[in-house]
Formats: sequence, C-alpha cells, structure tokens
Amino acid sequence: MTVKLLRVGPVGAERPALLDAGGTLRDLSGVVADIDGALLADSAALDRIRAAADAGGLPEPAAAGLRVGPPLARIGKIVCIGLNYHDHARETGAEPPAEPVLFLKAPDTVVGPYDTVLVPRGSTKTDWEVELAVVIGRTARYLGSREEALAHVAGYAVAHDVSEREFQIERGGTWDKGKNCETFNPLGPWLVTADEVPDPQALRLRLWVNGELQQDGTTAEQIFPVAEVVRYVSQFMTLHPGDVINTGTPAGVALGRPDPKPFLRAGDVVELEIDGLGRQRQEVKDA
Amino acid sequence: MTVKLLRVGPVGAERPALLDAGGTLRDLSGVVADIDGALLADSAALDRIRAAADAGGLPEPAAAGLRVGPPLARIGKIVCIGLNYHDHARETGAEPPAEPVLFLKAPDTVVGPYDTVLVPRGSTKTDWEVELAVVIGRTARYLGSREEALAHVAGYAVAHDVSEREFQIERGGTWDKGKNCETFNPLGPWLVTADEVPDPQALRLRLWVNGELQQDGTTAEQIFPVAEVVRYVSQFMTLHPGDVINTGTPAGVALGRPDPKPFLRAGDVVELEIDGLGRQRQEVKDA
Repeated sequence: MTVKLLRVGPVGAERPALLDAGGTLRDLSGVVADIDGALLADSAALDRIRAAADAGGLPEPAAAGLRVGPPLARIGKIVCIGLNYHDHARETGAEPPAEPVLFLKAPDTVVGPYDTVLVPRGSTKTDWEVELAVVIGRTARYLGSREEALAHVAGYAVAHDVSEREFQIERGGTWDKGKNCETFNPLGPWLVTADEVPDPQALRLRLWVNGELQQDGTTAEQIFPVAEVVRYVSQFMTLHPGDVINTGTPAGVALGRPDPKPFLRAGDVVELEIDGLGRQRQEVKDA
Repeated sequence: MTVKLLRVGPVGAERPALLDAGGTLRDLSGVVADIDGALLADSAALDRIRAAADAGGLPEPAAAGLRVGPPLARIGKIVCIGLNYHDHARETGAEPPAEPVLFLKAPDTVVGPYDTVLVPRGSTKTDWEVELAVVIGRTARYLGSREEALAHVAGYAVAHDVSEREFQIERGGTWDKGKNCETFNPLGPWLVTADEVPDPQALRLRLWVNGELQQDGTTAEQIFPVAEVVRYVSQFMTLHPGDVINTGTPAGVALGRPDPKPFLRAGDVVELEIDGLGRQRQEVKDA
C-alpha cells in the first residue's frame, strides 16, 4: 500500500504521521519517534510503519486542523541541480550543461508546504521553481552505476526552490546567495517512499501563481535523470540518510518571461503539485 | 580568564572539555551537555563554564590520549567567503570583489583538527586554505551595523577550507562542487570565546605543508572584516547559533603558484595555526 509520510504540529514540535489510503491522517508517534535520516536508514522501522498502516487502527491525531510541517526532520544538507530541464535551460538562454550544475541550500531554509514564503528585504526578483526532491536513505559515496544510485533513494517529495534572481546572478559570487534566504525551501506535504514511485522520470510538475498555471513540465525533460544525479553527486560529496537533492525545475519561471517579469510580491499565492506527491500552497509576505 | 572550549573522544561521541590556563585538559561533561549552538546562545551556561574554570577542581578526562574532535556539535550551516584577502585575490588573478562572494560548505565536511584529510577519487588539484572561522552565538537577521554584527559572534576557531580546484572551477556550476568533499573542513582544536579575541583583524594565520611555510598572512588583509561579513551575510540568510562563517584565506595556496602547482597528495602533512586559536595537523590520504 502507498505510504505517505508526513509531520504535523507546531514549528519545531512536529510529530510523525501518515496519510492512509482513505485520505485520513494517522498518528505515527506510537510507532516511530520521528521521520528523519535515521528512520529512512532503518528498514525494520519502515516495515513497522507499513505493518501498522496495513493493520489499521492507528489513531487520528488528537488535535484537528494541525499545521503540516516539512516531512523530514534533521536534514543534513540540500544539494540542488541547476539547469536540469531542457525546456528551462532554453528559457534562461543557457546552454544545456555538459555535466550537472551543483549548488547548496542550507537545511534551515526548509519550511512546511503551507507555510508563508518571505520576500527578502531589498528583493525585487523573487522567483518560483517547482522541483522533485529526492530523499537519501543510505550513505552514498562514489557510487558505480545508476542502478546502484536508485537503491540509495528512500523517497520523493515536492520542493519549492524559491530563488532571488538578483542575489543569485547579479551580486557576485555563486548562486548560493540567492538560494538561502529564510523560508526559501517549502518541502512536502508528503514523503512518498521510493517503492511507490515506479518511474521518477514520468512525473508531471505544475506550479500556479494566483491560480494561473505558470509551470507545467515533466521529469521526462530532465537532462540528468534522478539516478544519474545521485550517482554523479556521490563522486563529489558523500550523501547521508536524510540528505535531500532538489533535482531542478522545468520551464516557466518568472526569469524566463519578457519584461516586466512577474516576480513574486507580498500577497501572491503560489501552489505547486507533482503527480502522486501532493500539493503545496504558500502565501507570500514581506520579510 | 581565557576559555578554550573543545570536544574530545571518538567520532560522533565527543564530550565537552576545556583547556585550562596551565594547558591541562578538563572534562566539562559535568557542567554542560555539549558545545553547540544551544550552549553558545545560553549566557548562563557559558557563565557556569567560566565559574567552574575559575574555581578549579574540574577533573581531567578519564582516558588519556583522547582524539580531539571539532569544537562545535550540530553545526547548522557553514557560509564561506571567497576571495576575501587582498593578497589572495591578487595571486588568483581575480579582481577584489565589490561585495563579499558567498558559497556554502555542508556541515558533514567537518572533521577534527588532527583527523585525516582525504584527496577525492579522480582529484589532481586538492588545495589548502587556512581560514579564521567565526561561530555565531545569536540569531542574526538583517543586522543594521557592524557593531551589532560583532555582538552576534560567540567565538573563533581555526578552519581548513580544503578545496578541489578542478571540481571548483573547471567542472561547471558553482564553487560548491569543489568545496564539499568528505573531510574538507577540519575545525579546531579550540573554540575561543569572542571576549578573548579583542581584535579579529589582527590575527596572524600560517599554514605549512610537510614543514614548509606556505601561507603567512594576517586578518588585517581581509577585504571585508569579520564585522562586515556577519552584517552582510545576514542580509541574505538568517544566521543561527551554531552556524559558522569561514572568512576566507590569505595568499599562498597551491592554485596561486607557477606550474607544476604543488597540490596535495597522499602522504603530505598539513599544519595550520592562527594566533591564540591553536594549531591543526592533518595527514593526507587517498579517498
């Protein structure tokens, strides 16, 4: 059965939960302590979750209307792949890269899927990017093949790789400057285990701003597929359980539009969805 | 009195300690749980350490010859400043940057000051960089002045910002690809509290390879001094207690030498020292 893991509760005090086949939230805090790298590396714990879900009888959370937090605690690092969709490379005017472009986001940028996104002070070019996030389940170091790489993936989630284009491109240095503002990585709602995603290269990704569809892509357009990304990254850095890879965004970002580009402003509402991985919704406010 | 905090013990099981005025190691595990961002944000806990140090009577660690780990646990993120010394910018042929160049290292690159540094597989351009690391003690967000910025610094340490120049510069994308290999951020031996460093712009930094002096600089050469770096970074990302800023390296790296450049190889020994912050020593091996 499909296991959709999530974490619910106030910021910093989220508890583990799952969404059952009927769409009902079930409390997992009697089964596992939290959803993090240690859990994902522990196949017995994942089996306990599946068994509890199959058996039924998991309680609903005591409180109703709980906030949904990011579906993963204690993220070690977030590796991001730049320009990884043919259509997005074209719209930014960049050549498709000969090998994956890597940059990092700090884990403290992660917020829940329905939390507020803040436009940084002084920003006029805050942009959206819907991305497939890959969550690592086993330590990955100098992997030898794409097949081996896929075996190190614990699951998938929706990520919003919010980006400030002036900070990223026009302020000197590397892209990190425009990628690490607070609230710049909404994650979730669910962490879907890898066995429930038979083909990560056949997922539709969409993003709307104020109800208007802006991105409508498919992971089939990825220049470097998930398996190659994981294999490649492991040649440069060791991936640990609970690390995340944001695998790039398809066409349709504000940066790719004619002037005046429709960058995000306070009051905007962004919604993101990936097939089978759920839907996010963020209101934009000023920092 | 000078408080030099450190953490000793096996990897992942280090215990807090201090080096007393007589140079004797003292166990702090009866006073605080660990040395991390939470401790640095807790002035009462720091006062307890100082009082215990002043009173004397702290025990020596039970085991002798303990490994020294990094002096800070649970690092949130490591922000690095590129090309921040006039002499280093000159040797790399780069113009001094108009504003700080930022990039990130993942916390999982951090090892102890005497641990092994690994040359990545396929690397021919692994390079050294001695740096002054700044440890954040209070949440820093859109700081208004350099004075305010310095009040958010908990302490200082020696960092080795090991760098693979081909991965960093010749493999596409941002510098992060050559900065995040395993073992690429030896830190310590000590975390020296900020009150013990009256002028962070008057520290001599030196680095030796196989006993030969390679870098001999001073933080007086920093293009952007520590206070400005902290203020500046806080405009782009929120700094949290336990975050680290590596503030750049002075001249003398292998990249700046005539060909054939003396990049690191297995068997080399690197030593690093900053006035008052202690000395590191790493043997280099192949990954």
